[in-house]
Amino acid sequence: MSAPTVSPAPTASTTAPDAPAGLRGVVVTTTELGDVRGEEGFFHYRQYSAVDLARTRTVEDVWFLLHRGHLPSVVELAAFQAEVAPLRVLPPALVDALPVLAAAGGSPLAGLRTALSLLGAAEGVRPVLDLSPEQRAADALRVCAVVPTVLAALHRTRAGLPPVAPRDDLDAAANWLWMLTGVEAPEAHVRAVRRYLVATVDHGFNASTFTARVVASTGADVVAAVVAALGAFSGPLHGGAPDRALDALGEIGHPDRAAAWVHEQLAAGRRVMGFGHAVYRTLDPRSVLLRETALELGGDLAELAVAVEERVVAALAEAKPGRALHANVEYYAGVVMATCGLAPELFTPTFATSRVVGWCAHVLEQAEDPRIIRPSARYTGPAAPVPVP
Amino acid sequence: MSAPTVSPAPTASTTAPDAPAGLRGVVVTTTELGDVRGEEGFFHYRQYSAVDLARTRTVEDVWFLLHRGHLPSVVELAAFQAEVAPLRVLPPALVDALPVLAAAGGSPLAGLRTALSLLGAAEGVRPVLDLSPEQRAADALRVCAVVPTVLAALHRTRAGLPPVAPRDDLDAAANWLWMLTGVEAPEAHVRAVRRYLVATVDHGFNASTFTARVVASTGADVVAAVVAALGAFSGPLHGGAPDRALDALGEIGHPDRAAAWVHEQLAAGRRVMGFGHAVYRTLDPRSVLLRETALELGGDLAELAVAVEERVVAALAEAKPGRALHANVEYYAGVVMATCGLAPELFTPTFATSRVVGWCAHVLEQAEDPRIIRPSARYTGPAAPVPVP
Repeated sequence: MSAPTVSPAPTASTTAPDAPAGLRGVVVTTTELGDVRGEEGFFHYRQYSAVDLARTRTVEDVWFLLHRGHLPSVVELAAFQAEVAPLRVLPPALVDALPVLAAAGGSPLAGLRTALSLLGAAEGVRPVLDLSPEQRAADALRVCAVVPTVLAALHRTRAGLPPVAPRDDLDAAANWLWMLTGVEAPEAHVRAVRRYLVATVDHGFNASTFTARVVASTGADVVAAVVAALGAFSGPLHGGAPDRALDALGEIGHPDRAAAWVHEQLAAGRRVMGFGHAVYRTLDPRSVLLRETALELGGDLAELAVAVEERVVAALAEAKPGRALHANVEYYAGVVMATCGLAPELFTPTFATSRVVGWCAHVLEQAEDPRIIRPSARYTGPAAPVPVP
Repeated sequence: MSAPTVSPAPTASTTAPDAPAGLRGVVVTTTELGDVRGEEGFFHYRQYSAVDLARTRTVEDVWFLLHRGHLPSVVELAAFQAEVAPLRVLPPALVDALPVLAAAGGSPLAGLRTALSLLGAAEGVRPVLDLSPEQRAADALRVCAVVPTVLAALHRTRAGLPPVAPRDDLDAAANWLWMLTGVEAPEAHVRAVRRYLVATVDHGFNASTFTARVVASTGADVVAAVVAALGAFSGPLHGGAPDRALDALGEIGHPDRAAAWVHEQLAAGRRVMGFGHAVYRTLDPRSVLLRETALELGGDLAELAVAVEERVVAALAEAKPGRALHANVEYYAGVVMATCGLAPELFTPTFATSRVVGWCAHVLEQAEDPRIIRPSARYTGPAAPVPVP
């Protein structure tokens, strides 16, 4: 049965035109969740500017907006907070597993990936294909609510500290800082972190969001999709590493060193961490928001960052004319989080606590579409079959 | 992140034409690992017929072929087996975690996902982007070698039995059956399972393989990519559920019931498990191989399956003329595995022990390509921005 027929009909893998490299610009799906307008330096969640939401709203507002379709009224928000509060609590199976997960080591993201995978198994999360929209939404709510608790509990367990239980009277931003320390954070820090979280809930069709949607398109469960997205999120090309951008700022140390540092990076063929973006051709609106936030918080680091940014952008404009390289979200995110007292190893987990809300919104949207995402590859090896020796 | 394209093009999400639904037929990448020729009912690993390889070679032969580019000589195979043997052993961190992972419950695939995620963290597996090709290949080798051990150990721990250590003198097929039971399987069973495993190592650009490549394209580590692939693999639309196909055979019970059963399924809008395939428009060559294998093994189940297949295909041809619906790999896979004494809950894990070799080969191939896979979405919601209320 393995002998091919004489005149094979064309198959997709041999005759279809190749898509642009990396599927760049290929429209895979429609979405009502939002968009990034790279030329304008603008992005939005549904019909609202994400930056405007970050200035005035909470994570819960935007979570409700993305998952339920509109901004909540005061009554809806209170009901939503009450609905979410118990879902923040870790299940016993995960509490039991925390020591062994913490002992395994690895990055906080890898720890979250393991813990969330275990939680999905322990709670018997079912394939989205087998669930009603309401049931899928309930699974997504659980995942979004529990991820910050998992990350904080793992962080503290690794440090030899007991987990701090979530608090029903705090919003996502305040509760995140609370669970990390067991101390109420200053209002200025809560406000700054809240802005960061709201501004990073979603951002177009990045690789982790796409991964979540591919997995969801197979009908798999919400946890499987988010666990997969975490893998893409951990990739160095994905972005989302504010700690590396802050490292760069530390290396530069003084504005007068910035131009020389840029030339060193470029000469060594290294990426200039914290600058440039795949989609934005002008200022990254998140960076603008977070620069303002950093300056409001004040301190030496913010001042250094602003001075260095100016020099780096000028040096990049000279070295790469026409490329319009600006500070990206990572650059000021690290400054804001460090100023709020977060250790660098918590920068990416903090990002993950908000982005999971976006991933889950995309999983729910994808689950409405019954078609699996299954592209093709073009075989370019030696002609087959050759007889097996 | 720091390597934006030179000429700012209009943003894809507003102007690019939409790709076909589900990226059907869209060529994302080239591959030298193999191809599926759906019209012919033929698939191959590099230049060799996969079915011919399944008849004459071991998993290790094909693993070497896909990961190292050619079929091994006798000397190369012996060296490869010696290299792989110690990599089958579980790390202490995972041995310690087995009880808590087993207690968490969930599907065997979810258990593997959690355990492999933990192993990756415990062993500090690094992003492929930061590794040499040799280092990446070593990570892939470790993952492929250890996955069967993880699955068998989890299976036995859940059953209250101690894990059975892998044996260096057995090939992948024989060792898999050994680790499940601690008893040497009859040679006929080993041969049948070996055929199944070799025939399922890889199969074109299915959704789990694509998922692994998307995650690898971000530069993430091999474990992150395989953990993500496991999520897609668990999706009901992905296929790979021989237990459900066997359930259907059990429901039918007698060939005379087959036609009525088909009509019931279609009338209820259910999928006819075990029949039809996304790519094959003729006989699935894996199904042909496994039917022959089942008949060689003998027994009532094989005879029932052959008789039912004929009636189901005829009923489908009448109900869905022109669709050419045939038994797929799942149909006879379940029959072969059940006849070899494997419990239904081990069918999908058995599949995973071979497919991980294919996923890892694709991850290694993808890692040679520096471009992230990042398509676009088209926003179709209300025009933005609307002022935030």
